[in-house]
Amino acid sequence: MADLKFEKESTALLVIDPYNDFISEGGKIWDRIKSVAEANGCVANMLQLLITARKVGLRVFYAMHHRYRPGDYETWKHIAPIQKATWSRKTFEYGTWGGEFRAEFTPQPGDIVAQEHWCSSGFANTDLDLLLKRHGIQKLIVAGLIAHTCVESTVRFAVELGYDVTLAKDATADYSEEFMHAALVTNLPNYAGAIVTTKELVGLLSSK
Amino acid sequence: MADLKFEKESTALLVIDPYNDFISEGGKIWDRIKSVAEANGCVANMLQLLITARKVGLRVFYAMHHRYRPGDYETWKHIAPIQKATWSRKTFEYGTWGGEFRAEFTPQPGDIVAQEHWCSSGFANTDLDLLLKRHGIQKLIVAGLIAHTCVESTVRFAVELGYDVTLAKDATADYSEEFMHAALVTNLPNYAGAIVTTKELVGLLSSK
Amino acid sequence: MADLKFEKESTALLVIDPYNDFISEGGKIWDRIKSVAEANGCVANMLQLLITARKVGLRVFYAMHHRYRPGDYETWKHIAPIQKATWSRKTFEYGTWGGEFRAEFTPQPGDIVAQEHWCSSGFANTDLDLLLKRHGIQKLIVAGLIAHTCVESTVRFAVELGYDVTLAKDATADYSEEFMHAALVTNLPNYAGAIVTTKELVGLLSSK
Amino acid sequence: MADLKFEKESTALLVIDPYNDFISEGGKIWDRIKSVAEANGCVANMLQLLITARKVGLRVFYAMHHRYRPGDYETWKHIAPIQKATWSRKTFEYGTWGGEFRAEFTPQPGDIVAQEHWCSSGFANTDLDLLLKRHGIQKLIVAGLIAHTCVESTVRFAVELGYDVTLAKDATADYSEEFMHAALVTNLPNYAGAIVTTKELVGLLSSK
Repeated sequence: MADLKFEKESTALLVIDPYNDFISEGGKIWDRIKSVAEANGCVANMLQLLITARKVGLRVFYAMHHRYRPGDYETWKHIAPIQKATWSRKTFEYGTWGGEFRAEFTPQPGDIVAQEHWCSSGFANTDLDLLLKRHGIQKLIVAGLIAHTCVESTVRFAVELGYDVTLAKDATADYSEEFMHAALVTNLPNYAGAIVTTKELVGLLSSK
Repeated sequence: MADLKFEKESTALLVIDPYNDFISEGGKIWDRIKSVAEANGCVANMLQLLITARKVGLRVFYAMHHRYRPGDYETWKHIAPIQKATWSRKTFEYGTWGGEFRAEFTPQPGDIVAQEHWCSSGFANTDLDLLLKRHGIQKLIVAGLIAHTCVESTVRFAVELGYDVTLAKDATADYSEEFMHAALVTNLPNYAGAIVTTKELVGLLSSK
Repeated sequence: MADLKFEKESTALLVIDPYNDFISEGGKIWDRIKSVAEANGCVANMLQLLITARKVGLRVFYAMHHRYRPGDYETWKHIAPIQKATWSRKTFEYGTWGGEFRAEFTPQPGDIVAQEHWCSSGFANTDLDLLLKRHGIQKLIVAGLIAHTCVESTVRFAVELGYDVTLAKDATADYSEEFMHAALVTNLPNYAGAIVTTKELVGLLSSK
Repeated sequence: MADLKFEKESTALLVIDPYNDFISEGGKIWDRIKSVAEANGCVANMLQLLITARKVGLRVFYAMHHRYRPGDYETWKHIAPIQKATWSRKTFEYGTWGGEFRAEFTPQPGDIVAQEHWCSSGFANTDLDLLLKRHGIQKLIVAGLIAHTCVESTVRFAVELGYDVTLAKDATADYSEEFMHAALVTNLPNYAGAIVTTKELVGLLSSK
């Protein structure tokens, strides 16, 4: 970890799915991740990373899940289980509070919001890779929800596409510690170049 | 051409960029393509294909260019000339009439509108490929604007991605016959499996 | 599961990384997965799926990892941990026995071998998606190695790209039951439409 | 042009298809492009760019077309006209002289050869984008064959993927001046940030 360096010109903070439905009291999924998220300070850590990124001049990107709209899936020939669940719950429903950014994470001028993703990877079928390239970004600091689905898929894709990824392990959450372990201990150490705490990241970024 | 067949289950009509700015009197680009478009009946042919597709039960997909919004390009490290032109003209400006579908081409229930594309290919950095796959589409009938930019790039990408393409040569237009020739005679015969008239297409589709 | 159907025209068997280094006695990784693989009959099941696929006329695709060659990674600016491990172990070394297909899995005429993948997904940076499309394939039956890396990434990518996936849960293996659980129980039920035994699959395929 | 700058760290030379079949006396396609190639000094210019790139320390990438092998296309459901032509001519046949690099363009240690492409774009279904990213490349100087097919598709894809492209207009060739005009004058000025002569490029690179 001693050699973790984040050049402002080529590093971005990538925040995944800071929707009310995930991380606000009353959101459709909040109750399912609340226990883990409150234990590790997930939302506060996500916010601290965001504030630090802005302060030190890292550009902020958002990878947001498709907001549910009627008619989305009715005509699909096949649908993945995770999409079927999204459909039945109308998660992130377009035009509702649940499908809005949690207030503190509302994009500010200069932030980049990629097109919405249909499944779990922020890169699949979106303009995220293009927008990162157009801003010269080669390294990503990743935070957001949910660890074993969108975060893990986005990190797996990022690495396949050639990005260097650092994951903030306490700025994500999941249904239980078992799910967290599968993502953070079993799988992502293969792909993320570093998996560190928010405190370590903030220290590294601030000491530049 | 005798063996052109379009199974309803696996063929879609792909309409590219039917924005007012392109094909409506008063649109920002209309004056530049009007001469060619009026000579070959481009808009009427596009519409006839759309009506025929609906009548015979082909699913309709739309590939729409990114609508200009302030802040789109200011932070890019590099920008392609065609994007610089879009930026300076504010083509397809979000929230304006020019950035709306020409009325007759307004999507209807069951139509699929892919995410907006940033440059010329309807496939690049969008969900078009995913949505075609999720509907079992393997063949595309392509119509729309402009022949040597978005149409040509979309067809080149479609073929690279494994689709079979039939192009309606009089349901597209361009700045001059020279540009039309470059797209329809010089380049696209390498990629499109067939390049035919709207009349031929309507005949083939209707006789099923 | 009752409604699992595999049309010959649109379904393929996708075999991931049947290299000697993974699944043959003496292979570089075999000792690490042997315990799980012998417990569930992984290799025999992979082979039975292959034989059944050929018998009933399903096309067979192979997604093979990049074979190590000197000079592969020396000039990379960043490298993922899993690639660093591959580099240091020279896994699947080009020109060696470990980098050859285990004999029974040698491709036969009509089989399709996609280009080698650099990390874990058989789709990333390869022609697998193209070759599946060119053969009309929309559904995949997936088997191979290793569950939480190449199999999971390939399935995650397949679903993001629009394929319907059925996973043979006893035709894969991993370092321990914990890793198997992370892939087969924690993560992949979100993406694979079905996760079944080889016996069930062979029954379904043979009864067509 | 005055502001064209090529930082060694982020710029690469991309050479497209320097196969004997294209640019060597006796190659299958050479007779069709010879007239244009001899008029503009195409091969000598490609070579001068290569030598200059090596001298000033730009990394060299090669995008090579799929070499024909028996069985390639027999099972495809659809095939693009340009692929059908490749098939019937057995262009770049694997294991033959025509499918080898022209001698002066043989890759040297440190050069990167991307996986072979099936159609015209060096990016489609290959690892070119990954390998460029892993080497920190954001700008491409493009040279090679043929202007209106592989060069144009590769440039169109490069720009869609977020690269800045400079094209060497006399280090490419085509069947006739009409084809050259379609690529270099009609189409590529929309995508390439600059289209310049080899002499200008060598001057710019050497004066760094």
